[in-house]
Amino acid sequence: MTKKATHEHTRRYNSRLVLRTIYENDQISRAQIARITHLTRPTVSDVVADWMEFGIVQEVGLAPSRGGRRAILLSVVDDSRHLIGLDLARKDFRGAVINLRGEIRHRVNLTLADSDGEAALRTVYELVDTLMQSATSPLLGIGIGTPGLVDADRGIIHQAVNLKWKNLPLRSLLQERYALPVYMANDCQVSALAEYTFGPDNIMKDLVVLHVGWGVGAGIVIDGKLLHGNPFGAGEIGHIKVTDHGERCQCGQVGCLQAVTSDLAMVRQVRAVAHKIPALLQRAYTPFVNGVTFDTVVALFNEGDETVSQIVHQVGQYLGIAVTYLVSILGGCRILLSGRIIALGPGLLNVVREEVQRRALPELAQNTEIDFASQGTDIVLRGASALLLHNELGLF
Amino acid sequence: MTKKATHEHTRRYNSRLVLRTIYENDQISRAQIARITHLTRPTVSDVVADWMEFGIVQEVGLAPSRGGRRAILLSVVDDSRHLIGLDLARKDFRGAVINLRGEIRHRVNLTLADSDGEAALRTVYELVDTLMQSATSPLLGIGIGTPGLVDADRGIIHQAVNLKWKNLPLRSLLQERYALPVYMANDCQVSALAEYTFGPDNIMKDLVVLHVGWGVGAGIVIDGKLLHGNPFGAGEIGHIKVTDHGERCQCGQVGCLQAVTSDLAMVRQVRAVAHKIPALLQRAYTPFVNGVTFDTVVALFNEGDETVSQIVHQVGQYLGIAVTYLVSILGGCRILLSGRIIALGPGLLNVVREEVQRRALPELAQNTEIDFASQGTDIVLRGASALLLHNELGLF
Repeated sequence: MTKKATHEHTRRYNSRLVLRTIYENDQISRAQIARITHLTRPTVSDVVADWMEFGIVQEVGLAPSRGGRRAILLSVVDDSRHLIGLDLARKDFRGAVINLRGEIRHRVNLTLADSDGEAALRTVYELVDTLMQSATSPLLGIGIGTPGLVDADRGIIHQAVNLKWKNLPLRSLLQERYALPVYMANDCQVSALAEYTFGPDNIMKDLVVLHVGWGVGAGIVIDGKLLHGNPFGAGEIGHIKVTDHGERCQCGQVGCLQAVTSDLAMVRQVRAVAHKIPALLQRAYTPFVNGVTFDTVVALFNEGDETVSQIVHQVGQYLGIAVTYLVSILGGCRILLSGRIIALGPGLLNVVREEVQRRALPELAQNTEIDFASQGTDIVLRGASALLLHNELGLF
Repeated sequence: MTKKATHEHTRRYNSRLVLRTIYENDQISRAQIARITHLTRPTVSDVVADWMEFGIVQEVGLAPSRGGRRAILLSVVDDSRHLIGLDLARKDFRGAVINLRGEIRHRVNLTLADSDGEAALRTVYELVDTLMQSATSPLLGIGIGTPGLVDADRGIIHQAVNLKWKNLPLRSLLQERYALPVYMANDCQVSALAEYTFGPDNIMKDLVVLHVGWGVGAGIVIDGKLLHGNPFGAGEIGHIKVTDHGERCQCGQVGCLQAVTSDLAMVRQVRAVAHKIPALLQRAYTPFVNGVTFDTVVALFNEGDETVSQIVHQVGQYLGIAVTYLVSILGGCRILLSGRIIALGPGLLNVVREEVQRRALPELAQNTEIDFASQGTDIVLRGASALLLHNELGLF
């Protein structure tokens, strides 16, 4: 609680405030900055001079004349710094060189050759090594979205089952190797940051990204800040019970959200009733069943197959139950579904909405918006860059 | 985002920082304050002079000699200001005059004569009128814990079914009538603040108060801040589904947490199986069943009655499910059970703990502490005072 408000503190605060103001206003004069921030003109000029010296802000021209001297306009130089974003939550590791606007300038994807933890770590190094060579501006740092339980404060991946990582101090490993600031959170958490930062404007600022892929988890932004848990675990809803039925989860329980709604779960359910699906029966049946993928599920759903529609409907209801838990605990907020289920479109979304209308308190349901996430397949990369830009430059 | 850091802002921040430092350290010198806060000696002296002029801080003596001049020690004058706290979440309205330490100096309880919303509001006025006459120091303001859905930002009680209040602008009504600052939140939320502020020290700062009385709800403090929901609804978990069974809830659904765990629900369940309970059979059975109260349930449980133990055990399991939802969404934190169920003691608490161990991810369960709340029957009054002290003086 005893955080000092010294001159240094104020200066840093003002410096970031000015940069953010320029960043948020495409072109802006020093006078306008002073008006918006309530800082004095000399303070604004001093701070702007610093940012210009770093090359992060530049003068870009003159404002239209209003009689009198025309004001000089300032802009952020979007590519004056680059940063490295990593998405480690896919079967392939993905990395990108990203600019100050979260725009991707260069991509590298690397297949995980081996499935042990050491090999996965070597692949991270290889990815960053390669990306560093592609950056054409000084690097600001590395932002990471990783699967698993992440102690973001200490920079440790407590557990990431699929990568066989346990208590991996990824931040300090990377900081030592590359001498750059490193920030990390789990993939769902950075996805929520991506939506908060780059998503469409919305008066409802509290949001949850509910990610449904081969795993299911949530990222939660409240009051503009990511919820982490103490020390971690916020949004780990893959194993909350949503039904008394369904296949046993790998965790040993029955009825876990993840076990009944992940894309894998949907594929498994469709395979199990393949004999009832005309479009599958038309082909040589038995060998084809194993060829059913999530894309097949989407195709069958879009064709209106009744059996598959029932399965998707049931998945939507389970997701609706999970959303009801979320809003009952967090209060009114925006819920954005992300992951491969987006391909199921409004047909799925409407079931989720109806289930929440049916289950949640009417006042809560009224204050809940349910949509698909807007940031596409780069959501984790963009979120990782938002995490870094926020922490290093005070943007957003 | 564009909040200015002006001189005025810094001054106010420093002023509150110094007061908080004195408040947290029983007796402290100006030099020690400067060391702790990193403020300059002259700044500390200026700010202290202001607080002394208000009469909120006073010089209380000299520090033990360490050679050289002995330093003057400062303390907060605990009763230099009083505040009014209201607990509107009981059958009787309770109010108190409270000092700067959250200590209750005077109490008034008023029975709700009538059950319409206007009468309830008149009773609030009567309560405050009476309390104002008992305050022996200048009043800092009014802090309120109220039932229902509360839009704390706008000071409106969106809905409080039992008091028949709907969209009641309680804050502006009281501010106009008494010309004092008013802060409010719902009873579970201020209870969480009470535990955060006045409860035993704990390194786990994120906490949830899970209140189980005639209603069931939660108050959530994350990073020292109350979660409100947008605009309200955080912690409204009374109607989350924890089972496919049980009596129908007044909301129309089956399996709501509140319908199966409230004290009323327990009484109802015991009445329904009274014919299996030897201690009840010994008496004239039928008329006595209606005399079974929650105290009877507690007594029978403590006597080890098997039927009642089963009922309490089942309640503990349902609460465990709810706690699992809470930690799966919020991450590792402290869960404090409050309300009349505290009387059921460790016998209940252990069932809740076991259920969470069984259901939650092991890493989450390890980072979850489950206990009873520490603040007793004054928890709402003390929480309401914490809300006011925090907002008006920057304490805690």
